[in-house]
Amino acid sequence: MHKKTIQNDFRHIPYSRFSVDLCKFRTMEKEFILGIDIGGTFTKLGLVDRKGNITAQAKFDTQAKEPFTDFLDRLDKAVHTLRRALDPAQKVIAIGVGAPNANAHTGYLEHPPNLRWGDQVPLADSIKKRFGLPVNIANDANAAALGELEFGMGMGLKNFVVLTLGTGLGSGIISNGELLIGAHGMAGEIGHVNVNSTANARQCNCGLKGCLETYVSVTGIRRTIFELLAEMTNDSNLRSISFENMTGEVISEAALNGDAIAIKAFKLTATTLGIQLADTTAHLDPEAFILLGGLSKAGDFLRKPTVKAMNENLFIAYKDKVKVLLSETPHGHAVLGPAALAWRMNANTF
Amino acid sequence: MHKKTIQNDFRHIPYSRFSVDLCKFRTMEKEFILGIDIGGTFTKLGLVDRKGNITAQAKFDTQAKEPFTDFLDRLDKAVHTLRRALDPAQKVIAIGVGAPNANAHTGYLEHPPNLRWGDQVPLADSIKKRFGLPVNIANDANAAALGELEFGMGMGLKNFVVLTLGTGLGSGIISNGELLIGAHGMAGEIGHVNVNSTANARQCNCGLKGCLETYVSVTGIRRTIFELLAEMTNDSNLRSISFENMTGEVISEAALNGDAIAIKAFKLTATTLGIQLADTTAHLDPEAFILLGGLSKAGDFLRKPTVKAMNENLFIAYKDKVKVLLSETPHGHAVLGPAALAWRMNANTF
Repeated sequence: MHKKTIQNDFRHIPYSRFSVDLCKFRTMEKEFILGIDIGGTFTKLGLVDRKGNITAQAKFDTQAKEPFTDFLDRLDKAVHTLRRALDPAQKVIAIGVGAPNANAHTGYLEHPPNLRWGDQVPLADSIKKRFGLPVNIANDANAAALGELEFGMGMGLKNFVVLTLGTGLGSGIISNGELLIGAHGMAGEIGHVNVNSTANARQCNCGLKGCLETYVSVTGIRRTIFELLAEMTNDSNLRSISFENMTGEVISEAALNGDAIAIKAFKLTATTLGIQLADTTAHLDPEAFILLGGLSKAGDFLRKPTVKAMNENLFIAYKDKVKVLLSETPHGHAVLGPAALAWRMNANTF
Repeated sequence: MHKKTIQNDFRHIPYSRFSVDLCKFRTMEKEFILGIDIGGTFTKLGLVDRKGNITAQAKFDTQAKEPFTDFLDRLDKAVHTLRRALDPAQKVIAIGVGAPNANAHTGYLEHPPNLRWGDQVPLADSIKKRFGLPVNIANDANAAALGELEFGMGMGLKNFVVLTLGTGLGSGIISNGELLIGAHGMAGEIGHVNVNSTANARQCNCGLKGCLETYVSVTGIRRTIFELLAEMTNDSNLRSISFENMTGEVISEAALNGDAIAIKAFKLTATTLGIQLADTTAHLDPEAFILLGGLSKAGDFLRKPTVKAMNENLFIAYKDKVKVLLSETPHGHAVLGPAALAWRMNANTF
């Protein structure tokens, strides 16, 4: 598998309402994609060349409770500033956008849980109108899968699954070298498979109970920690931390320091994840799973017991054939997925 | 969705070691695929035109405990007889084979559980050498999925999953109009996802415990019936039937006659299946599931509670978008899947 180094040496320029980083290396590339990652808290954007180098990037508060048109205005300003990084011979040829619940089929944001812009937001059309460029959108985890395929750990692979383990659990499936889209543009919602059908299964934000993401995500392990704090009597530094402050980093650090509750929480989380990876393998027969996001930063604390549980549950035909990889997440990574999406759709050379 | 009528009016010719049926209608088609379905008990073969009409078919005992070369000899004789149904202007252009554990990537039968021909049987090459025609092989459930796509309930659909509910549970996934193959030719082993990770999960022939097929298959519902016969005290005609004689038909008939144990067994089976269909939907976002095989013959006894359990567990984005269909299984159906496989690979018109 190839890896590539992505330029990440930037000159930082603070603005009043957003920040911009310009790459210190002058690029000779002539064509760029504007990659945009819309999150519940921040929106990140960057100019990305065909090799995945980010020549300039910016970030601003999404302000998800303000109207969508205000968001477009802020985006416009950030894009305007970014474009100054290009000389007249260099141009932006298209825009790729990743966002939660963005539907690649319809071009709409559909019921985005953390963006208060309505149930059906015409995202692709609005951005196209604003900037006069071709626009492709995809849900953030699907975009991340394309980012790994074009510029990351997925280079050289044709069948793999990306899992983003953050506040929730997103997923994107690459099958035979292409993003698996599904009949309605909604394939790859592995965060919402049922892993507990008993009466005391955890409630999920989606309305169901026992969804994978209620156990395997930063929020999920936090819930597990609180169950264990109630169940076990061990001393633990985690007992002094509130639910809201119980971040993935705090839990990882406790585990590294030998905290029995944190270690058990990782083991439970990894076991649930590993069994699911075996089940997902029985659907898709992938070469690898690539884990991204806050929880994946725990490294081998998560990965090793996950691999163990997966292997114990793998159907014989897949034994020793499936890797579990932790993504390297270079600076600016969030825009590489959306950029990869648009490059695939728009590059003549592809 | 289109449906088509498949000619199924045959003139039966009994031979000593195999039987042949010739279609009473003279076809004008010039090109045929020889479709072969190798099962643990019977091997079926048929000459299938581009529209899925079977112009002649035959069947013989697989005799899976005899050497593979003996099998090839018997196959040779049956093919020889079948070909007599064609006039000199009509020809067989290719061969498609469906068999348990046939790997489309490698051309081998790999660890077939019910065929004692070795761990790695060079199926595609052996048949190619014997008949001098292009040969494509696929596992039986994958072939069945292609059969539904080309000639069955899947006509007009691009994303669906076929589940064969027989002795085991096989599956084939159609994604974006193509068979989903996976990295090693082994995608679609949904029968081996884990649906019970507790200590008393059922043992599966594959070596794992708690596999879907130990609950959802003819064998699975039979096991459920025996658990319920032990657990419940209701009178039941099923109490006079041995484990070996407890066929899908016997259980279906008991349920139709109001047998409480049979009805409960269908409900438990359907609930397990329905929850799994919701989980599989969260991977693949299909338009439909198509159920085949012995257990599917129970009709709405199986289908209705399956749909209910699926809908209760579907992620919101898929609500009301996924159908559960029962395949119609015309005479000679088993050869249509393998024939569809070879037609897709060999027809210029496709």
